[in-house]
Amino acid sequence: MLRKTYDEELQQLFNKLIEMGSLVEDQIKNSLIALEGRDLDLASGTIYKDRLVNQMEREIEKDCLNLILTQQPVATDLRNISACLKIVTDLERIGDHAQDISEISISLGENKLTNELDELHKFFDIIKVMLKDAIDSFVASDVELAKNAKKMDDTIDKLYMNFRKKAISSASKDPASAEEWIDLLQVAKYLERVGDHAENICEWVIFSVTGDYVESLKNPKRMRS
Amino acid sequence: MLRKTYDEELQQLFNKLIEMGSLVEDQIKNSLIALEGRDLDLASGTIYKDRLVNQMEREIEKDCLNLILTQQPVATDLRNISACLKIVTDLERIGDHAQDISEISISLGENKLTNELDELHKFFDIIKVMLKDAIDSFVASDVELAKNAKKMDDTIDKLYMNFRKKAISSASKDPASAEEWIDLLQVAKYLERVGDHAENICEWVIFSVTGDYVESLKNPKRMRS
Repeated sequence: MLRKTYDEELQQLFNKLIEMGSLVEDQIKNSLIALEGRDLDLASGTIYKDRLVNQMEREIEKDCLNLILTQQPVATDLRNISACLKIVTDLERIGDHAQDISEISISLGENKLTNELDELHKFFDIIKVMLKDAIDSFVASDVELAKNAKKMDDTIDKLYMNFRKKAISSASKDPASAEEWIDLLQVAKYLERVGDHAENICEWVIFSVTGDYVESLKNPKRMRS
Repeated sequence: MLRKTYDEELQQLFNKLIEMGSLVEDQIKNSLIALEGRDLDLASGTIYKDRLVNQMEREIEKDCLNLILTQQPVATDLRNISACLKIVTDLERIGDHAQDISEISISLGENKLTNELDELHKFFDIIKVMLKDAIDSFVASDVELAKNAKKMDDTIDKLYMNFRKKAISSASKDPASAEEWIDLLQVAKYLERVGDHAENICEWVIFSVTGDYVESLKNPKRMRS
């Protein structure tokens, strides 16, 4: 009976993680819509909603520590809970970047953007898939899915480098637009970071399933040599 | 006798955290020296050394989980270990930013910088004190020290905003230097982020000593309402 409760608690934990993943995905999406549409209310709302992301992080962390304390999990379960503790931090950072992008939106004010944001949307389309696959791979303990999602980060890095070249050359040609390009480049940088966090999540899934982590957890002295 | 071993293990954990704090401080310092002196070897070395930071993170995490599993700490000890688990993630991110700055150094190549980096050094001087105080406040459970260190982030934010204005106006006036200014602004952004992570550490110390965290950890259901 105890075991059933434990499994239920574990499932509840994973459900919360999925919920948090979907919340931060929405946050990133809204921060881009707000930027493109110069929607300062949506930008402010996204900043405000980050406290919900932080609250979920803290709640999931508490659940993880609580499970470790009360249930003394070993092997796979302990690996999963440890991975969960790390993943939640990456999700929270992704949420922070949605807030960062919204702050740039607000600092840009109500002026219409002179530049197209198509390329930033390409980032988001990939990030959306990558993030979903990363979290799905954790829930399903699917190492192959995690490995494939991890590879998407290369595409994101390339998109960022291309955007960077374009921003630098545009700012040099039209100095009046330098500030706007610097801001948009910063947005691109945040999206590139979101990709890094999604990659971290994939790596935690791989660790968690292949067991490297727990092997050294069982014998921490070995790590020090 | 068991208690003594436990106290020793806890002390060992805190010592490692101090060691890691001093390592990431060195990493940030070296990344700036490499940038200013166009020292590509030092930049590469800093990037290489980030694996040491990552290794320490993983090791401290394992020690934390191991202590929770084997010793079932409650109250202050549990709060301290939970805070330790979070602080180590912030330190690792600071290490990542030293790597990021070093990567910018390398991408700038061997060309001499046309701009002075005095202002970036001002960032570092404050960050160094803030980081040390943040970690000391954790080790000494000193909430006042944590609160004072936390305030330094305001100064760092102001320095960043000033540097940003200067970079945008300089890039607009001299389009040929736009790329260099964009890179230096990115370095300033990373330093500003380091300040955010140091601020996080202070907040964890405050949580850990005042006990808000553990209060809800004991009763996670309350958090959901």
